[in-house]
Amino acid sequence: VMDGSDTRRGQPSVHRRFALIHEKASWSGSANAFGEGAAILLGDLALTWADEMLFLSGLPDVALLHAKPTYDRMRIELMAGQYLDLLEQARGGGSVERALRVARYKAAKYTVEGPLHLGGSLAGAPPNLLASYSAYGLPLGEAFQLRDDLLGVFGDPEVTGKPAGDDLREGKRTVLIALAEERATGAQRSLIRRHLGDPSLTAAGVADLREVLSDTGALAHVERLIATLTETAVEALSDIRDPARSVLADLALAATTRRG
Amino acid sequence: VMDGSDTRRGQPSVHRRFALIHEKASWSGSANAFGEGAAILLGDLALTWADEMLFLSGLPDVALLHAKPTYDRMRIELMAGQYLDLLEQARGGGSVERALRVARYKAAKYTVEGPLHLGGSLAGAPPNLLASYSAYGLPLGEAFQLRDDLLGVFGDPEVTGKPAGDDLREGKRTVLIALAEERATGAQRSLIRRHLGDPSLTAAGVADLREVLSDTGALAHVERLIATLTETAVEALSDIRDPARSVLADLALAATTRRG
Repeated sequence: VMDGSDTRRGQPSVHRRFALIHEKASWSGSANAFGEGAAILLGDLALTWADEMLFLSGLPDVALLHAKPTYDRMRIELMAGQYLDLLEQARGGGSVERALRVARYKAAKYTVEGPLHLGGSLAGAPPNLLASYSAYGLPLGEAFQLRDDLLGVFGDPEVTGKPAGDDLREGKRTVLIALAEERATGAQRSLIRRHLGDPSLTAAGVADLREVLSDTGALAHVERLIATLTETAVEALSDIRDPARSVLADLALAATTRRG
Repeated sequence: VMDGSDTRRGQPSVHRRFALIHEKASWSGSANAFGEGAAILLGDLALTWADEMLFLSGLPDVALLHAKPTYDRMRIELMAGQYLDLLEQARGGGSVERALRVARYKAAKYTVEGPLHLGGSLAGAPPNLLASYSAYGLPLGEAFQLRDDLLGVFGDPEVTGKPAGDDLREGKRTVLIALAEERATGAQRSLIRRHLGDPSLTAAGVADLREVLSDTGALAHVERLIATLTETAVEALSDIRDPARSVLADLALAATTRRG
C-alpha cells in the first residue's frame, strides 16, 4: 500500500526509485507515471509474496487452513483503514472520533491485534486467549499510532529519519490535529488553516504550529491518551501466561515510549 | 492492476469514479490523487478477496492446498507481465520479440494457460494434461492479445466500447506497432513518430496511422500470426478428451475471431 510520500525512512520511496531509473535512462513518457505504475505492481507482488510465504512456511496444513481467514481479515481491515485515512485527509479532518477510528483500523488491528491473532490461530489458541489479545492489542496499537503522530510533528529527524514537521507539511489529519482544532481560539484556528498542508512550510512555520498544538493542550491530551491506552493494554495481560506476558509487557513499553 | 486510462468499456474507470465523488463533495486536495489512491486500495482489496473466495469455495482442503502454488504463480506472472508492459511503453517499444513476451506474460499465461492449470490442479490433473493445456493455452492467449491489439486500432467503437484508435492516442507499444516500425519507410516512420501517443490525435490522424499499419504489411502479418497461433493451439487439443476438447475448440474460435 503506497503512501505517496517521496521519502521513506530518509531514503527515496519505491515510486521515486523507479522514477529515477526512468530519468537516468531518458525513457519516453512521464518518469513519475512509470514510478507510480511500477510501485503499484511491486505492492501487488509483495501482497502475493507475503501470502505465498505463509503457505511455504512449512507449518502443518491444518494450521495454515485454520489461520487463513484470520490473515485475510487482517489484510482487508488494513485496506479499509487505509481508505478511511484517505477519506479523512480528503474531508479535511475535523473529527477526533473519525481520526481515532483510522488509527484503530490502519494501525491497531494490523500492527498488533492481527499479528497476535495470526500467531494464535496458527497455534490453535482458544477463543478466550484471542479475546485477551484483542483487549491488549487494540489499545496498544492505538497508543502506538498516537505516538507515531506525535513523532511526525515533534520527533527528532536524526532518530525518525523524516524531516522535522513532515506530517505538518503533508497536512496529515491526525487525532492530535483534530484535538487542537477542537480547542483552538479563532486566531489559533486560522494559523492551523494557513500552515497545515503547506509543502513549503518553513522551520518558523513548523515552530508556530507546534506552539499551537502545545498551547491548546492537544499535545498533553494525546500524551495522556497514550498513557491510558497503554495502561489498559498492560492490564489485559493479567489473563495471559508467562513468558508471553512479560514479552508483551516489554513490547507495550517499546511501542509507546520510542523516539523514532 | 490499474491501467491508467480514464474509461473502461465506455464507462468511467475506477479511479475516475472515486475522483468524481471527490469533486462532487468539494473535498480538499487533489481529486485525481484521491481517485488513484482509492483505486490502488480497491485493487489490493480485490486481490485479497479473490484469494479469499478460492478458499471459501467449499472445495476440499487437499484440492485447495494443491492448487494454491498454481494460483500464486499465475498472479506473480501477471504482475511480471504488467511490469514488462510498463517498461516496454517507457522504452518506447522497438522490439517485436519484447512485445510478444509482454503478450505472453500479461495475457497468454493469465488469461488462458493459468485458468486451465488452476482448474486442472484443483481436479488433480496429471502433468501430461497440464502440459497439453500449456501447448493449447499459450499460443491461444498470444493470439487473443494480438486480436486485442488489432481491435484497439481498427475496432468498431460500437462493439469495443472504446473510442476509435484509442490505443494509438495512448501510444501503446504493441506487436502490431513494432512490426510496422520494422518495415516502415523513412516517411512512414516519421508519421508514426509524430502521431503515436498524441492524446489529441484527430480522426484524420487515426486514419493516416491505420494506413501505415496496413501499407507496411504489419496488419496482414498480425492476422497471419493470429491464424498460425490459433492453429497451433487447436492442434494441441488432439491430446485432450471430449467434452473438454470441443469446448476448448469453441473457445479458441471465440477468443480470436471476436469483434469487441
